[in-house]
Amino acid sequence: GLIFASGTMTVAKEGKKEKKEKKEKVEVAKKGGDKKTKLGIDVSKDENYSEWYSQVITKAEMIEYYDVSGCYVLRPWSFSIWEAITEWFDIRIKRLGVKNCYFPMFVSNAALEREKTHIADFAPEVAWVTRAGSSEMAEPIAIRPTSETVMYPSYKKWVQSHRDLPIKLNQWCNVVRWEFKHPTPFLRTREFLWQEGHTAFATKEEAEKEVFDILDLYAGVYVELLAIPVIKGRKSEKEKFAGGDFTTTVEAYVPVNGRGIQGATSHHLGQNFSKMFDISFESDKGKEFAWQNSWGLSTRTIGAMVMVHSDDKGLVLPPRVAQIQVIVLAVGITGSTGEEEKKRLMREADKIAEDLVEKDVRAESDLRDNYTSGWKFSHWELKGVPIRVEIGPKDLDKGEVTVVVRHSGEKKSISREGMEKEVKEMLEKIHSEMYNKVLASRDAHMSLTKNLDEMKRKLDEKFILLAPFCGTPSCEEMIKRDTTRDEPAPEGGTAQMGAKTLCIPLEQPKEELGEKCIHPSCTHTPKAFALFGRSY
Amino acid sequence: GLIFASGTMTVAKEGKKEKKEKKEKVEVAKKGGDKKTKLGIDVSKDENYSEWYSQVITKAEMIEYYDVSGCYVLRPWSFSIWEAITEWFDIRIKRLGVKNCYFPMFVSNAALEREKTHIADFAPEVAWVTRAGSSEMAEPIAIRPTSETVMYPSYKKWVQSHRDLPIKLNQWCNVVRWEFKHPTPFLRTREFLWQEGHTAFATKEEAEKEVFDILDLYAGVYVELLAIPVIKGRKSEKEKFAGGDFTTTVEAYVPVNGRGIQGATSHHLGQNFSKMFDISFESDKGKEFAWQNSWGLSTRTIGAMVMVHSDDKGLVLPPRVAQIQVIVLAVGITGSTGEEEKKRLMREADKIAEDLVEKDVRAESDLRDNYTSGWKFSHWELKGVPIRVEIGPKDLDKGEVTVVVRHSGEKKSISREGMEKEVKEMLEKIHSEMYNKVLASRDAHMSLTKNLDEMKRKLDEKFILLAPFCGTPSCEEMIKRDTTRDEPAPEGGTAQMGAKTLCIPLEQPKEELGEKCIHPSCTHTPKAFALFGRSY
Repeated sequence: GLIFASGTMTVAKEGKKEKKEKKEKVEVAKKGGDKKTKLGIDVSKDENYSEWYSQVITKAEMIEYYDVSGCYVLRPWSFSIWEAITEWFDIRIKRLGVKNCYFPMFVSNAALEREKTHIADFAPEVAWVTRAGSSEMAEPIAIRPTSETVMYPSYKKWVQSHRDLPIKLNQWCNVVRWEFKHPTPFLRTREFLWQEGHTAFATKEEAEKEVFDILDLYAGVYVELLAIPVIKGRKSEKEKFAGGDFTTTVEAYVPVNGRGIQGATSHHLGQNFSKMFDISFESDKGKEFAWQNSWGLSTRTIGAMVMVHSDDKGLVLPPRVAQIQVIVLAVGITGSTGEEEKKRLMREADKIAEDLVEKDVRAESDLRDNYTSGWKFSHWELKGVPIRVEIGPKDLDKGEVTVVVRHSGEKKSISREGMEKEVKEMLEKIHSEMYNKVLASRDAHMSLTKNLDEMKRKLDEKFILLAPFCGTPSCEEMIKRDTTRDEPAPEGGTAQMGAKTLCIPLEQPKEELGEKCIHPSCTHTPKAFALFGRSY
Repeated sequence: GLIFASGTMTVAKEGKKEKKEKKEKVEVAKKGGDKKTKLGIDVSKDENYSEWYSQVITKAEMIEYYDVSGCYVLRPWSFSIWEAITEWFDIRIKRLGVKNCYFPMFVSNAALEREKTHIADFAPEVAWVTRAGSSEMAEPIAIRPTSETVMYPSYKKWVQSHRDLPIKLNQWCNVVRWEFKHPTPFLRTREFLWQEGHTAFATKEEAEKEVFDILDLYAGVYVELLAIPVIKGRKSEKEKFAGGDFTTTVEAYVPVNGRGIQGATSHHLGQNFSKMFDISFESDKGKEFAWQNSWGLSTRTIGAMVMVHSDDKGLVLPPRVAQIQVIVLAVGITGSTGEEEKKRLMREADKIAEDLVEKDVRAESDLRDNYTSGWKFSHWELKGVPIRVEIGPKDLDKGEVTVVVRHSGEKKSISREGMEKEVKEMLEKIHSEMYNKVLASRDAHMSLTKNLDEMKRKLDEKFILLAPFCGTPSCEEMIKRDTTRDEPAPEGGTAQMGAKTLCIPLEQPKEELGEKCIHPSCTHTPKAFALFGRSY
């Protein structure tokens, strides 16, 4: 058997060591059927989607499994994407006057339960610390599932006058939601990383403006960094954040299974929390309560990126978040290649990487002599590096290099002279191409309907659908029930699920809304077109 | 009474609202005796050190108290210091080839207990999650007190061959140590933020080299950023990290009470953990175990900074970590100042701040017209901003500005033209002066002794002492016991405690070590001069 790339599964060495991954490999093999472990991904994205996802994230060295269920190790190859996102977003919220801080991750029961609607939503998933060392605690202490109830008692202390507003704070931290559904790395995990912004204003207008400023930044993370188109909208009453006035969201489309995925949410809390926590000030009009927002973006972004862009060869990284944007290899070295020639090729590969780094391209050379070129091709494709540059004896003679684009497979020769500029342009072009490809797929799978049967049929064809909707939770329940598949979903799919509203798009279709809500038995008047879909 | 600056305690508004800080203020007043709450710090550093510390960190808006004991809110004014430290350190470890990642904060009992010596040290302080929602967990899960036992099972999976080494990972995260001693913000907290680096090498030499490379960076954080001199050394057998081979440390001196404070530690773990976790590879020599290090720097840095530099007027920020390095005020505006003149002053103050920002100085103007200049002087002194620039009518006429240096009180006029360059130079000079002042104080309180009685006497005179030491834990115990004060310590002090070794300095004194260990009843031969002191 071939030796697997990542170093986490080595067939050749099995005999030597009894390691845990052996057991894992067996499990993988079982899940995937009778396939042999081979170099790279051994199941196709269309064929067995969940197994494919698991192989991509482990073999590309993004995730290591862990012995606490629902918790995963973010290895440098995925964490560096998170670093790129945090850097981009952090600069931009600071420009909006937001400051970073850190609040404790522990919450007293008293604070946690202050806002009832809010806690009703989170209570079933709250993890409780009850023991320290060998001592039982007098009062169990919760771990934050989100920090509204952690932060707002301080906001109360800080706000005395309208001059103490606005407060604009953000923290980058971990949160815990002990879900009992089947966990999925990045997408549904019991601990995850996120930023949570919490702001308070003297007026509703200022607060509402910020909700959408932040939503634009969230759209920016997807569009500008991850090359994923998103639809901005409001969440329905059923799907909004508990305790808030309204929730806005960016929603992405996952071509492989036609499901929607919530990208990030920006909530206007109105005065609900400020009334519960007494965040108030005196004005001419008497006592006034602050208007609040909270907004969060998590490591789920990375899962969306994997699902949307990656393929049967493995991960495909959008250039702007790729830790390595260009990998440079010396190729065409055979047994008959002279020692001098070999050295020249290696030196040139190093030089190319250096020249690219000089021009702010994140480039590295891979000159390891214990791996073949073929192995390296597969390895760096699996890891999703956007561009591979090859330099062989012929390239050297002709003053050229060969470049291979990961997402398209495109291969061409370009002049060595001035290649840095061309590579930089290619990286930008790759970003646009990746974005446009997903956009085209989404737009081909998004349509408008006023008929529930059509919706149900189209959902099975991986569509997301705009439909007139009254907005009531009970009607949304009916729609979900009546779009649920009768027969079981195909292998690896949860597509049996019914549709829910992904959002009510801010930009509404030009079509007439009409008089009827999408559900035939609904008697309410439709308020807007909502976007429906199967969803993560 | 005057209205207090920070907005967290306002005497004038007490009647209007019943806020929590009212209760806190009363407690503060009780602790500090009968003093009235006044603008700024109302107790001197020498007089009541612990009350002074508490006032500085709350009134400078670094810390907010919280309703879970031992947990505190890091407000932007302190968190920005942590951001400056993380940025500086993160760049430098990446240059050493370290990559960031994120491991779960939960540890299974099985993993936690794998290395016995290690867990024996941490077990009494481990927080346990036993319940999720309303369900009791089958197995309690620990929250990391540090991540050796979290990370090393993965290292085992990743290491098959010497080619898989070195592994150099770091994470920025929170950890929990549920201590039962009296907590102090920054210095002893149940949750704190830190970075923890965990590296594994094929050879002992590589590992040992890295221990000291990292120690140099830790020294850099103190010397280059926080303007605090440190002594590099090894920890004694008694004080080293449990389960490691040796611990290195940077130790700072706190002039006000003569105590040492551990700045950060870099541990060589030898093969202890690699043997327990089976992090091994095959070589010509057969099975070999990896050589490991771990190293950590925490938000304790901020506490050290406060204690060392701040004074009776409040916080004093070293310029390189100050979120605002220069505050610009328009002064000398009175009732008779014309509207046009006033506008000119305000515009000029804004312009000065802009010009400074243009030259990469973190400058802001404070033009709020609801506060007097006197109030602003006190406010920004309390917050520790290194330089205040004042522009008044006379300055404007003469083409000058007045600059006031926070740490020294120095005040002078400088030409408006070219002031940006001068201010930048002043910031650098302030850094050196602050550093040198602490260095001088430390060197005046560090001496060498071979006599335990002298050590005891000098400890009371706020000295730290170099003394010949055999290195055995039992002897260190005796020294501690016999240097403990008989009479109670003065107000606010824990200085009754006996001395322990701060470190065995890497750079040893030139004096003869002699034949006798510092403790008269010790019969072992001294191995080196150790630095003894009362300590945090």
